Amino acid sequence: MGTITADAIKTAIAAERAHAEALFDQLAQCSQRQRGITRDTYGAGENAAHDLFRAHCTGLGLAIESDAAANTYATWPGSDRGLPRIIVGSHLDSVPHGGNFDGAAGVIAGLVAVSALRRLGFEPRRDIIVMAIRAEESVWFQVSYIGSRSALGTLPPNVLDAPRIDTGRTLGEHIAASGGDPDAMREGRHALVPSSIRAFLEVHIEQAPSLVELDRPIAVCSGIPGNFRYPDARILGRYDHVGTPRRFRRDAATAAAAFAVALDRLWEEREAAGIAMAATLGRFHTDATTHGLTTVAGEFRFSLDVRAYDAAVLAGLEADLQSIIREIEARYRVQFDLGKRASAEVGVVCPTILSELEQAAARLHIPATRIASPASHDAAAFASAGVPTAMIFVRNENGSHNPDEHMEIGDFLEACAVLAAWIADHAA
Amino acid sequence: MGTITADAIKTAIAAERAHAEALFDQLAQCSQRQRGITRDTYGAGENAAHDLFRAHCTGLGLAIESDAAANTYATWPGSDRGLPRIIVGSHLDSVPHGGNFDGAAGVIAGLVAVSALRRLGFEPRRDIIVMAIRAEESVWFQVSYIGSRSALGTLPPNVLDAPRIDTGRTLGEHIAASGGDPDAMREGRHALVPSSIRAFLEVHIEQAPSLVELDRPIAVCSGIPGNFRYPDARILGRYDHVGTPRRFRRDAATAAAAFAVALDRLWEEREAAGIAMAATLGRFHTDATTHGLTTVAGEFRFSLDVRAYDAAVLAGLEADLQSIIREIEARYRVQFDLGKRASAEVGVVCPTILSELEQAAARLHIPATRIASPASHDAAAFASAGVPTAMIFVRNENGSHNPDEHMEIGDFLEACAVLAAWIADHAA
Repeated sequence: MGTITADAIKTAIAAERAHAEALFDQLAQCSQRQRGITRDTYGAGENAAHDLFRAHCTGLGLAIESDAAANTYATWPGSDRGLPRIIVGSHLDSVPHGGNFDGAAGVIAGLVAVSALRRLGFEPRRDIIVMAIRAEESVWFQVSYIGSRSALGTLPPNVLDAPRIDTGRTLGEHIAASGGDPDAMREGRHALVPSSIRAFLEVHIEQAPSLVELDRPIAVCSGIPGNFRYPDARILGRYDHVGTPRRFRRDAATAAAAFAVALDRLWEEREAAGIAMAATLGRFHTDATTHGLTTVAGEFRFSLDVRAYDAAVLAGLEADLQSIIREIEARYRVQFDLGKRASAEVGVVCPTILSELEQAAARLHIPATRIASPASHDAAAFASAGVPTAMIFVRNENGSHNPDEHMEIGDFLEACAVLAAWIADHAA
Repeated sequence: MGTITADAIKTAIAAERAHAEALFDQLAQCSQRQRGITRDTYGAGENAAHDLFRAHCTGLGLAIESDAAANTYATWPGSDRGLPRIIVGSHLDSVPHGGNFDGAAGVIAGLVAVSALRRLGFEPRRDIIVMAIRAEESVWFQVSYIGSRSALGTLPPNVLDAPRIDTGRTLGEHIAASGGDPDAMREGRHALVPSSIRAFLEVHIEQAPSLVELDRPIAVCSGIPGNFRYPDARILGRYDHVGTPRRFRRDAATAAAAFAVALDRLWEEREAAGIAMAATLGRFHTDATTHGLTTVAGEFRFSLDVRAYDAAVLAGLEADLQSIIREIEARYRVQFDLGKRASAEVGVVCPTILSELEQAAARLHIPATRIASPASHDAAAFASAGVPTAMIFVRNENGSHNPDEHMEIGDFLEACAVLAAWIADHAA
């Protein structure tokens, strides 16, 4: 670790505990707190978090900038500003009624690492940037990685017309109202050039209890899944009276159930064959304006997310699902309309940084392990753009995207220590 | 047919065509007509239909009365008022966005039969009552046969506290606002004494396309199903992030799907064994306030209606469902909460009237057949109270409880002719 010892890093990071706790508290305070935490993408919740980040970084003496997509950058300048920069960060938005740490932990980890390294008198040669990313939670606009892809110039401009699911206002309107510049985005202006980025590192809470199961505080990430998605699919059958004999029915709810069970079986089979994936029907429902106790459901709606770590696996799954759909359409005499398709590329982690992070953990005597990310992350957008990318996960026993999401501050500080150690080695 | 010939009946009924068409039209006019027909139970829609019925019957010179539940009775008095009466009728309410004929056809059939018999100079010995029944559609208050059971004194008084699903106001409040007297209902006052009723006859559109399949205009009913119902059941799992591995999930939506598929398989097996039944998950949905593309569903809601023609079959189905639920709870680590249970007894049709109706159809050269009712009907409440009961179904190719419900007036008049012929035989 260059001139900084493992013990010095650990002590400096331990001294950041109150700093980190205060930041998480302030962030929770500025969020909507009915049934968990809500920081709505390009809305009051996310905007308040960026305001807090900006004010806090100014207090730390970091230089603040923002870009067309209203991402916020806090820079600790290096002695040679021409060198490729290290970016650490994550997103500040949340799902509705989620937890306080999903996303925010990665931004605060960057601040903790920077603060600890400054406390140690470290003087970086290259810029270290803590990036507060916008709009990672695709539930709001049904689009992935809006902030990070916009910063990297890889966001298709037509997504600016996507409506937010609750307000109905477009992404472009929301960005403008949050201080961004959708016209500049349409022109393709973007803040980051991949070749000028040494690495992108993202700390994130784990979104499943694998680390609880493995009894480890942190993990380095071995891969980020790609996905295909149908955010608003429908099944059309026929509404019928509750007494209608089975042979006459075109029951959209039973057809949907058969689809869900087939999807679950597909997953079970792939998993038994050692192929990692996940499949989720997050919205899965009859039509609230028409359904009733005494009516066979004539229409059904669902969202589908299928994710895996290999593009060929994803293509195979999508082909299998099409066969399943054809079979269910025939069996239940219904019609599937999958609607708009979205997808995200598989995110390949930089193997060099991955092993450097493992070595740093070992020197710090932190029992880290290696896991594949169950979730998509901004890191995948950086990896797809050609930036050397890595992630560190923090143990969380209650999963994410729910109010019970939980992270021990001690586990979080272990991740910060590994992050600070890697920066000390590679920014010197 | 006593002194009236089959030809005379057919001619008199044919002359009622314009009368019947005008009544159906007026009824549609006075109903809410957005996406089909809505005559809400103890609301503006049903009330308008009763007003129309009352005005029309007064025009025909029939005596009008109503009871504590605001059922409406139009009486053609017999020469011997002490004799047990014949009641013909059905309900005037509808499901939301249903059709014009479900229920109303039975009331208008009574008026058509009475009008035709008067045209023929028929003079009844016993009272003939056309009854416009309240609140048959259980979707509104999640309670079966409110109007008919109230008239017969078999409605439990505690159901007066049931809220209407849309307004939230109680059944008692709705009845009072519709001119009824919930206090009298609570005291057990009721209009009808089973022993003073010679028969209850109900014409109803068929609610499945069996008669289309069999190429018959009408059918006599061989039995009315009983049911058990769980109007508001829940499955509790855990909300999780979309990437959560399968082994950690407690996915309420996938558990619900497994339940629906098992229920459908149960039905398929019973049907293969020659046992008539139906099972419906009319409402089947994730929680609209919490679900989303990137969240595993932690809660699921559904309604369940299971119906059959034999009490022992129903009991067997309910036991099988309990086993299925236990198995799914263990497999998906979720909890079912079935909520309030409701049920309706099997409705046994009077075999004598059943065969008399078949004989009347034969004499009129109407190709009637015999089918089990897929649906519940007010007739079941009369049968359960000990009244000799029968039903006639009218062909309907598009099913019921949907805007496409369809009835040919010619088929309807065949049912009216059989009804009139039976009345001519048994009121003379």
